[in-house]
Amino acid sequence: MKRKFAILTILFLFLTGFILAEEGMFLPNELTPALMAKMHRMGLQLSADQIWKNGGPSLAQAVVNLMGGTGSFVSPKGLIVTNHHVAFGAVQRQSAIKGIDLIHNGFFARTMKEEIPAPGYKALVLLTIEDVTQKVLKGIKRNMDPLKKYERVEKNIKKIIKKAEKPGYRCEVKSFYGGEKYYLLTYLELKDIRIVYVPPRSIGNYGGDIDNWMWPRHTGDFSFLRAYVGPDGKPAEYSPNNIPYKPMVYLKVSAKDIAPGDFMFILGYPGRTQRYMPSFYAEFMEKEYYPGRIKFLEGWIKILEQGSKRNKLAMFKNAGMLKGLNNAIKNWKGQLEGFKNLKIVERKREKENKMLEALKKNPELKAKYGDVFPKYRQLFEEWKTVMKKSLYAGWFAYGSRLLSAAMTIDYWTRERTKKKDIDRKPGYMDRDRENLLLSLKLVDASYEPWTDRQVLKYFIKAQGKLPPEYRLKGLVKLLNNDFSDKNIDAFLDRLYKNTVLTNKEERIKLFNSPHKKVLKSGDPFIELAEAIIPEMDELEKENKRLSGKALDITPKYFALWREVFGSDFMYPDANSTLRLTYGTVKGYSPKDAVFYLPQTTLTGVMEKETGKDPFIVPEKLKKLYKNRDFGMYIDPELKDVAVDFLTTHDVTGGNSGSPVLNARGELVGLLFDGNLESVASDYFFYPPITRSISVDSRYVLFITDKFQGAERILKEMEIVK
Amino acid sequence: MKRKFAILTILFLFLTGFILAEEGMFLPNELTPALMAKMHRMGLQLSADQIWKNGGPSLAQAVVNLMGGTGSFVSPKGLIVTNHHVAFGAVQRQSAIKGIDLIHNGFFARTMKEEIPAPGYKALVLLTIEDVTQKVLKGIKRNMDPLKKYERVEKNIKKIIKKAEKPGYRCEVKSFYGGEKYYLLTYLELKDIRIVYVPPRSIGNYGGDIDNWMWPRHTGDFSFLRAYVGPDGKPAEYSPNNIPYKPMVYLKVSAKDIAPGDFMFILGYPGRTQRYMPSFYAEFMEKEYYPGRIKFLEGWIKILEQGSKRNKLAMFKNAGMLKGLNNAIKNWKGQLEGFKNLKIVERKREKENKMLEALKKNPELKAKYGDVFPKYRQLFEEWKTVMKKSLYAGWFAYGSRLLSAAMTIDYWTRERTKKKDIDRKPGYMDRDRENLLLSLKLVDASYEPWTDRQVLKYFIKAQGKLPPEYRLKGLVKLLNNDFSDKNIDAFLDRLYKNTVLTNKEERIKLFNSPHKKVLKSGDPFIELAEAIIPEMDELEKENKRLSGKALDITPKYFALWREVFGSDFMYPDANSTLRLTYGTVKGYSPKDAVFYLPQTTLTGVMEKETGKDPFIVPEKLKKLYKNRDFGMYIDPELKDVAVDFLTTHDVTGGNSGSPVLNARGELVGLLFDGNLESVASDYFFYPPITRSISVDSRYVLFITDKFQGAERILKEMEIVK
Repeated sequence: MKRKFAILTILFLFLTGFILAEEGMFLPNELTPALMAKMHRMGLQLSADQIWKNGGPSLAQAVVNLMGGTGSFVSPKGLIVTNHHVAFGAVQRQSAIKGIDLIHNGFFARTMKEEIPAPGYKALVLLTIEDVTQKVLKGIKRNMDPLKKYERVEKNIKKIIKKAEKPGYRCEVKSFYGGEKYYLLTYLELKDIRIVYVPPRSIGNYGGDIDNWMWPRHTGDFSFLRAYVGPDGKPAEYSPNNIPYKPMVYLKVSAKDIAPGDFMFILGYPGRTQRYMPSFYAEFMEKEYYPGRIKFLEGWIKILEQGSKRNKLAMFKNAGMLKGLNNAIKNWKGQLEGFKNLKIVERKREKENKMLEALKKNPELKAKYGDVFPKYRQLFEEWKTVMKKSLYAGWFAYGSRLLSAAMTIDYWTRERTKKKDIDRKPGYMDRDRENLLLSLKLVDASYEPWTDRQVLKYFIKAQGKLPPEYRLKGLVKLLNNDFSDKNIDAFLDRLYKNTVLTNKEERIKLFNSPHKKVLKSGDPFIELAEAIIPEMDELEKENKRLSGKALDITPKYFALWREVFGSDFMYPDANSTLRLTYGTVKGYSPKDAVFYLPQTTLTGVMEKETGKDPFIVPEKLKKLYKNRDFGMYIDPELKDVAVDFLTTHDVTGGNSGSPVLNARGELVGLLFDGNLESVASDYFFYPPITRSISVDSRYVLFITDKFQGAERILKEMEIVK
Repeated sequence: MKRKFAILTILFLFLTGFILAEEGMFLPNELTPALMAKMHRMGLQLSADQIWKNGGPSLAQAVVNLMGGTGSFVSPKGLIVTNHHVAFGAVQRQSAIKGIDLIHNGFFARTMKEEIPAPGYKALVLLTIEDVTQKVLKGIKRNMDPLKKYERVEKNIKKIIKKAEKPGYRCEVKSFYGGEKYYLLTYLELKDIRIVYVPPRSIGNYGGDIDNWMWPRHTGDFSFLRAYVGPDGKPAEYSPNNIPYKPMVYLKVSAKDIAPGDFMFILGYPGRTQRYMPSFYAEFMEKEYYPGRIKFLEGWIKILEQGSKRNKLAMFKNAGMLKGLNNAIKNWKGQLEGFKNLKIVERKREKENKMLEALKKNPELKAKYGDVFPKYRQLFEEWKTVMKKSLYAGWFAYGSRLLSAAMTIDYWTRERTKKKDIDRKPGYMDRDRENLLLSLKLVDASYEPWTDRQVLKYFIKAQGKLPPEYRLKGLVKLLNNDFSDKNIDAFLDRLYKNTVLTNKEERIKLFNSPHKKVLKSGDPFIELAEAIIPEMDELEKENKRLSGKALDITPKYFALWREVFGSDFMYPDANSTLRLTYGTVKGYSPKDAVFYLPQTTLTGVMEKETGKDPFIVPEKLKKLYKNRDFGMYIDPELKDVAVDFLTTHDVTGGNSGSPVLNARGELVGLLFDGNLESVASDYFFYPPITRSISVDSRYVLFITDKFQGAERILKEMEIVK
């Protein structure tokens, strides 16, 4: 009866309007006593030290940043569990490379020998966090020219990294609280990642794009990968001689019953939030920026879909981009809905009014921060113009895989002409060589000729529709300002007929050539890149100048915020660094008279089946259900296999695959999504309806065990029941 | 806190799987001691006698049959409350007659003088129920020819009615339990019904066809009418000198808080159920009958929609038919969904298997009822052919208003040629004259020339697509078997150019003419009617013959059912006679992890607003909401105005407008719909997800008072708080 009473309790809390506001994506090195005390009250049985210790060992060292998502070690042999959709890129690339359909069927390596590479995948283990604010701001003066100021900061950061980064490690310096603080983050960089078990898409992505961001959800969104290192135990590129990595810490996997009200915390890599964005900025996002982006993306998606229908290989090649764009557009639409329904701009204004009132009441505060709002608003007006221009121009190079490759080659070789590495553009320094080269190698896995050309045409036509001042002048010149279909087609004919970039060896050869030779190559895609780069650079410079201006404003804005709202539960916006967020298992009411319970079941999986993609249930799973062959994974209260669950955690994109940990730090689930009502939480966290969605660890184990019979994986994990 | 705990209780009951099976549409004169005891345990505070007393006074005499729906008296001055959609026909006709848009704006008579007629509306008050089984079956022998048998029953019934029916009253004899029992029902017939208050469509039909059959619901589906009688207090046709009718009994209207778990009962006129239909019959409905009907209706609806766009008057004229067809098609689709999801055919088979097992085990039972199933199955095979033929032929006369009028005139005058009234077709006897004449007068309110012609064309073309043996032979002959567009158009040109039936006076003149003169009139619609009537008659005769056969089978089938399943809670299928059904306020789970709470609120009305029809909220209502000007109608637990609520009652079409009564018999709501999951309950009642939907009496009062300011209506009601 435990669960039933828990549901009653949770519904009771809901009805009485008592809401736990579990906002916050906390840096692991900033767990305040107040925060720890609150989590302990809620049930946490660990100390701050057990969660994060500089240099380890602590739970955080069991968590990895995985290609913009999150994963975690769950065995002493480097086994990583993450989301199906985080591992999807690897599967998609392997399918495209091998021409075998791993996307639909999934993949299971019966032995370690059979584990295949996850092309391009890396896993980063965060080891230390160091405050480098002083070093970053060295030599910065109030009255410096903004662009100079920015460049000084950039250079300081490059120096810090250069000094800190050793082979096998990856360092980054990130800005927090609008530039109030800078941390140096040092990661172990594992480069040989392999695919162990990816369930069929009909389980790992059950519900597909239709159910994406939705509740109730029935997706088994998990996969197993493994990190390998060289025979010396150090990070190394793929080699058949490599051995499984032995992680400093790995997570126990729980097969225990979970129930509404249970305390849980999550460690992961949320990508980006804008919680502190001022109202005027948010208003622009709502009114102009998002609607424009959505419209543009819809056209882009249409082409990718058309292309995918051409043949199976085309489908494999476009799958990754299509999934990404579909996800983005649903997200943005959700953002817009949220902006409207939650009145986000209004709520932000209320927050600002409190700050303005505090300024009014407190002369001391006013003396210190009185200029923050007027200056911020002025900065925004300048920024708006740049953002509008970036709306199309910023994307221009990403539509075509070949143009994208040309840009990489051009930028890389150009930066090579600078003698000192420290003077080179971030992203094109010595340390970036390997990643750039990898991206050039991987072009074949996503280059689909028909689609590539149609997308580029779409981008060019879009430029033609812009007011002249927003167009890329270099492109206009190349086309003689003639954006007619005929002229664009002729232009594209020339591009695609004469380029050598479709050939991997040629791409690499050019990458390794001197810049002059690249320019002389006469490759039309290099020509196109050359034509638009000056303007891209100009845009970048403008961005830098404004960022330089911001250096005087935003740190003060955050300081004022702290003065007015306190710092016990303050946290910086997400920026793809490791964060802790806490909460409980909890349902919610999406609308009048409707209540969502926080757990779904295998029965729900069966109910949803239509026999049509994405709602096809594998026969084997149907059989297990029919025979109630649930093993130890049955939930005694649900009398069913629990599939997904809702929690109140504060998460966003990048958190995908994050381990959901119970009070003792055992893995009880993998976060994989938020509800549609929550996507606007990137801008404003609204507790009553903001929920994150995780797959229950028991469903992961049930599928791995009963459905796949993957005993060898189960054996190496430490499963606690 | 009462409500919250009640919700918890109800959710708890739901979670524990404890389901109250509140199946049953009981005849008021058949309230068994077992049923009364159960209702008393659930909270009922009334005796069987207070609910139904032959001749009255009892609560049942406060309930009226209103044009196929239900209403109830709520004041000593004949004030009737019913659904907006039950009063809709009157509003639609008045709009069409006056050319004023009462449909959108609604109507409120500020004084009694301003109350306008509800054209064609009648209210029937059930006074007595008498068992006439013996009289109906008089002279029936086992081995009679089936057609003769049927005609003998029909004649006996006519005689009983002839004897019983007095001026101002209406009598009918209905068959129950498949012909096991026949009751004579005697009604007071009130013929002067007027419109008192119809709220705007944006309240009375908020959510429109989109929300139809849906939960959560936010419709204020109510209207007030009034019954008038002659100055002598006796039923009379409309006259300005008439006075308000003083009902024998009227209902108190409750403004008390209602909550989940509350016991309620409903008195109303459910139209038709098929609970006892055998599985083989149900299977035919699922596989052939419904799919065929749905497809045909979709085309019909499309034409009506096209026609409605022509101009405002066309919209008014088509509105009634369109609403009816849309409702039907959504219902049928829901039926099909239900057949599939609830596996109705399978469940019926299970029930039958229990009966077959009982027959196997009990030789005595077998001797008595052993032939029931084989005979029933055989009968069905014959019936299937007739039903298939009826699928299109049966509707043929209903598509065109003019053909329908021609059929009425032709049948009526033909039957007049028979000397004895008792020999005439039921529906065309002396007692039917008034209703038929009324229908001819009302043709103008729904005859829209373009639509009428297009619909008739659609019907004719549909005939052309049928296999020859299913076509109407008379029609084939008129068209010389040429179903080409060109020939049909020429045929229709002649019909519509030369008919006089578009003229009300001409219709009435023909109606009052001898049959010979009608035939000689040469009106092409009369010709068409003449051409198809022989075949319609043939079809009717075939139906009668099979009904005659059924007289030997179905009473035994019901008797067997009673033997096997007991009779304490047995009830006859709905047949538009007064029924009692009981239940509680209760939510349900429509799918995995989703729970519907059983009450909606004014906040939900606001949430649903899109500004586009059917989700437009009147400004006045928005203002009331904004100012929280809820008066005495606020629900203390919801802290809001309660709008609609769910109950577990067993209802169907015809119940619309039924009073929902609390344990003391006070009106707490008006039933107006069932959920989509429930529509298949016409065939099989499945308690866990079958719910009826009512508008809360407090919302009715809130709109009448705060929104409309209709004090004069409020004053004459007895409101209990």
